[in-house]
Amino acid sequence: MWDPAVPSDCVFVETTELTLDTSGRHFVDLTDRVAEFCRSEGDGLVHVFAPHATAGLALMELGSGSEADLDELLERLLPRDGRYRHQHGSPGHGADHLLPVLISPSLVLPVVDGRVQLGTWQSVVLVDLNEDNPRRRVRLTFLRG
Amino acid sequence: MWDPAVPSDCVFVETTELTLDTSGRHFVDLTDRVAEFCRSEGDGLVHVFAPHATAGLALMELGSGSEADLDELLERLLPRDGRYRHQHGSPGHGADHLLPVLISPSLVLPVVDGRVQLGTWQSVVLVDLNEDNPRRRVRLTFLRG
Amino acid sequence: MWDPAVPSDCVFVETTELTLDTSGRHFVDLTDRVAEFCRSEGDGLVHVFAPHATAGLALMELGSGSEADLDELLERLLPRDGRYRHQHGSPGHGADHLLPVLISPSLVLPVVDGRVQLGTWQSVVLVDLNEDNPRRRVRLTFLRG
Repeated sequence: MWDPAVPSDCVFVETTELTLDTSGRHFVDLTDRVAEFCRSEGDGLVHVFAPHATAGLALMELGSGSEADLDELLERLLPRDGRYRHQHGSPGHGADHLLPVLISPSLVLPVVDGRVQLGTWQSVVLVDLNEDNPRRRVRLTFLRG
Repeated sequence: MWDPAVPSDCVFVETTELTLDTSGRHFVDLTDRVAEFCRSEGDGLVHVFAPHATAGLALMELGSGSEADLDELLERLLPRDGRYRHQHGSPGHGADHLLPVLISPSLVLPVVDGRVQLGTWQSVVLVDLNEDNPRRRVRLTFLRG
Repeated sequence: MWDPAVPSDCVFVETTELTLDTSGRHFVDLTDRVAEFCRSEGDGLVHVFAPHATAGLALMELGSGSEADLDELLERLLPRDGRYRHQHGSPGHGADHLLPVLISPSLVLPVVDGRVQLGTWQSVVLVDLNEDNPRRRVRLTFLRG
């Protein structure tokens, strides 16, 4: 029997905010925390969002060398030198402010039966080269059927 | 009492389309218009979308020099020279057609109690270096609980 | 009369998975398959997702030369040489693992009255330079009102 207090097939919104310490790390693996948030949910979409102007979210393989490769790529695309108009904090900090233009801090993932439908080698990774602010937040939002 | 005509906790869809004139501007701040669209809504997600093949949407700080830094980055990654196969309009216009590959024209943001959960220094910015077409549209879509 | 078995104005979730063969192709046009999935739906958002660590999704014009231009850009940003720590498979394969950091495999599009609201020149394109794995999947998820 359909219970009007819990309409079937309707989407519900749930949201929470994680807090992170990125001290000494350019990459923080969020995969398990996103999976945990989605567990016991049904089908839907989960949104991952970093409310910061110098961080991004990437889907990438971890543990096989791509972290060092991404560091090299970012140093090449966004060299930490004196070229930036946006200057404060650490040398080359202007580069940090362009990172989220190339690596968006907003990411949506599909969820089926409470399980995030990531590929085998995909991890949800906060990318953050900013050494001036290690305290980070990440908001998770679930729309479920 | 739960009113079946307006199911509580269900998501509703609302959508609207903004029109913009980007004449002489590479960056258009959409933050206030997105915030206004979400006001008086509940919890959910807002989707921002530019239905154009030469524009992107970035989350970035405005007013501290990053606009000039992004201009420099884009000129470096997508130089406006004669290299492009896609050639029509202004010189180097082929570069404009690659911009949305690096800066997606699709962006999702979390909303809690009608307020977009942007970080302090995040603005929603249309990035558009295409001088051939200053008339732009941006579609906003809200899914709320 | 409102039928509680099909709550009006509520969002429903639908999802499916496409299978693709990318053999010999860097770019696969998904536009028609996404449009077909959304047809006979109402208003909402469609999410396109590639559960692979070496592929991305771009919105771009096809058929006017931008494919070759994107190949040139990616070779420039992610040269297929020996620089990568992540080394296995084809030479330069480490580059493939950085592609989804720059071109996200997650994309959301607005749908109004069953029609994806793409711009005239926008196509939904799987970008995949990885020659080692031509069998690809793409998950589509619809949240409709």
